[in-house]
Amino acid sequence: MRVGIPAESRPAERRVAGTPETVSTLLGAGLAVDVQSGAGVSAHASDDDYRAAGATVVDEHPAGTAGIVASVQPTDHVDRLRAGDVTVSFLSPAFELDHVRALRDRGVTAFSLDLLPRVTRAQTLDALSSQALVAGYRAVLVAAERLPRFLPMFTTAAGTVPPAKVLVLGAGVAGLQAIATARRLGAVVEAYDVRAAAREEVRSLGAKFLELDLETQDGVYAAQQSEAALERQRELIAERVAASDVVITTAAVPGRKAPTLVTTDMLKAMAPGSVVVDLAAETGGNVVGSRPGEDVRVGDVLLYGARNLPSSLPVHASKLYAKNVANLVLMIAREGGPDLADEVLAGCCLTHAGEVRHAPTRELL
Amino acid sequence: MRVGIPAESRPAERRVAGTPETVSTLLGAGLAVDVQSGAGVSAHASDDDYRAAGATVVDEHPAGTAGIVASVQPTDHVDRLRAGDVTVSFLSPAFELDHVRALRDRGVTAFSLDLLPRVTRAQTLDALSSQALVAGYRAVLVAAERLPRFLPMFTTAAGTVPPAKVLVLGAGVAGLQAIATARRLGAVVEAYDVRAAAREEVRSLGAKFLELDLETQDGVYAAQQSEAALERQRELIAERVAASDVVITTAAVPGRKAPTLVTTDMLKAMAPGSVVVDLAAETGGNVVGSRPGEDVRVGDVLLYGARNLPSSLPVHASKLYAKNVANLVLMIAREGGPDLADEVLAGCCLTHAGEVRHAPTRELL
Repeated sequence: MRVGIPAESRPAERRVAGTPETVSTLLGAGLAVDVQSGAGVSAHASDDDYRAAGATVVDEHPAGTAGIVASVQPTDHVDRLRAGDVTVSFLSPAFELDHVRALRDRGVTAFSLDLLPRVTRAQTLDALSSQALVAGYRAVLVAAERLPRFLPMFTTAAGTVPPAKVLVLGAGVAGLQAIATARRLGAVVEAYDVRAAAREEVRSLGAKFLELDLETQDGVYAAQQSEAALERQRELIAERVAASDVVITTAAVPGRKAPTLVTTDMLKAMAPGSVVVDLAAETGGNVVGSRPGEDVRVGDVLLYGARNLPSSLPVHASKLYAKNVANLVLMIAREGGPDLADEVLAGCCLTHAGEVRHAPTRELL
Repeated sequence: MRVGIPAESRPAERRVAGTPETVSTLLGAGLAVDVQSGAGVSAHASDDDYRAAGATVVDEHPAGTAGIVASVQPTDHVDRLRAGDVTVSFLSPAFELDHVRALRDRGVTAFSLDLLPRVTRAQTLDALSSQALVAGYRAVLVAAERLPRFLPMFTTAAGTVPPAKVLVLGAGVAGLQAIATARRLGAVVEAYDVRAAAREEVRSLGAKFLELDLETQDGVYAAQQSEAALERQRELIAERVAASDVVITTAAVPGRKAPTLVTTDMLKAMAPGSVVVDLAAETGGNVVGSRPGEDVRVGDVLLYGARNLPSSLPVHASKLYAKNVANLVLMIAREGGPDLADEVLAGCCLTHAGEVRHAPTRELL
């Protein structure tokens, strides 16, 4: 069985789905690995590095020659894939319906890492979490870079500079990492999540958990709350946004439009020079007016819409992603094909044998 | 006595020499303050903020109308200044000889904050230190932004990411702040300074002090060492540069060309994706090939030459600088003119009554 690692072709994608380290792992399991020439260049892994690890470096995209094609973004050259070929990537199926149809029609077995069930056994495959870790870290650097103030407190001969106040909305993996990074840099941090279960995690990182007087059902995602509850949430959040130097929003709901948390009026109530980073900008945005990859001025506040932040840390984002991928490939690559009775593989299998197996995606087609 | 705060006119200078806070201080001492309209815009202080503090907002540059003109960069409109008028700014006299001649010929009393004697009494005026604090902090953010790796260590379900290795060359105010910031972000830091006295400060920040087997005289600035000693220093530093993910160089010598510490061969020995930030790029550079304000690729290493990093944190850089300036202005503004018998004022007085009083600058004219 050959595993193929292509060079990513989508704009500004600097990650790669296999590293020399994971090539060794896959070879150790009896697989062969083809790496497209230049695949690792943006992640600072050279063709020679891959060869040294035992990979075959190939000129062409491995679709149609490798039995398993593993990539970051949805596989290119679906038209070359053969029935029974396997693909592994982030597929974002809700946003890639034409791609899903093509995979289905060619009889490809496609696994999408965004559909991975959140069970303990799947933790070593959890690419959403590993990439969210990167995004949360980068979000704080992006904010610190744009902020005209220090994050830490300083006491100097000429006086004292107070620490910056950072508000993190959404305390999933990205939000928790943003909290941890802002705390590392010395900021005073507060955070909010609709899940009351996030309270202890937030507090353990040295941040304040905002207790909003809301009648929400524990564990319910923001987007699934009623519009009335969201309105009340916005009112209460508005006060904390106005008191913050930095706001980082991380309330993404996989496969759905992100909930609106911060309005233009809230931005305008912030102090001049404040910075807002919207990690959900690519899926509709938590902040009104955010645009992926762009800085937008709203009065004297700078609003940055994140676009693929994990790609901006390509060495380590690739290192973690490639490990997730290798662990999934090791589960897939067995005699007789992947065991789709396995709950992990079944959960993240999007297409197989001419069918779309993921019900929410099937409904969109 | 009127103190005038102009809008800075040099490209990319976002700081301002007075803030609403220091306006209040100066007014409290019986001075009047004229602030040029828009002076604080890049530092997020509006004309209304200055008016609220008691300043008079004026349309024109205050040269010729205020008795004391305080700015960040050398004063514009020297031709409007009157004999006996006072200016306060960073003058970088060695690089501004035409400007110095003009100040001298008009009989201006010019104080340059780069010439401030480093005595205890002058600490609250020490703008070189306050701005170096900003530069050291920003240098780490600039490096972290460009680095394709995490700075902190992470232990995830998919494996462990080791902390980045950061080398800081020069452990003055900027270097120490770079060390502290890199440590905050979780990096493993080592540092070197020709002054053995820096050892304890470096260690107290949790960094390793590099003990180079050099026969240097304690307290001697790098640039003043013999070329042979510098050569030996480079050989020994080369090994640590090669082992680092990030190198930050801060060995500036006020008024002189910065010493060369890192050669192109040293850069080429670094791991792919490594980042070097040269804080001395504007005064000749500690790193061969650095260019102020530019990213230069040397093989697979990214070399960033800093240009006016304090200006990139305009709110807090201005806050600290303005306090330094206000403290100096309070010493200057007395009946009968500044007391040039005072060692602090004498030390930083560049021109007075038609003469250049700073001997090293006089020699250059």
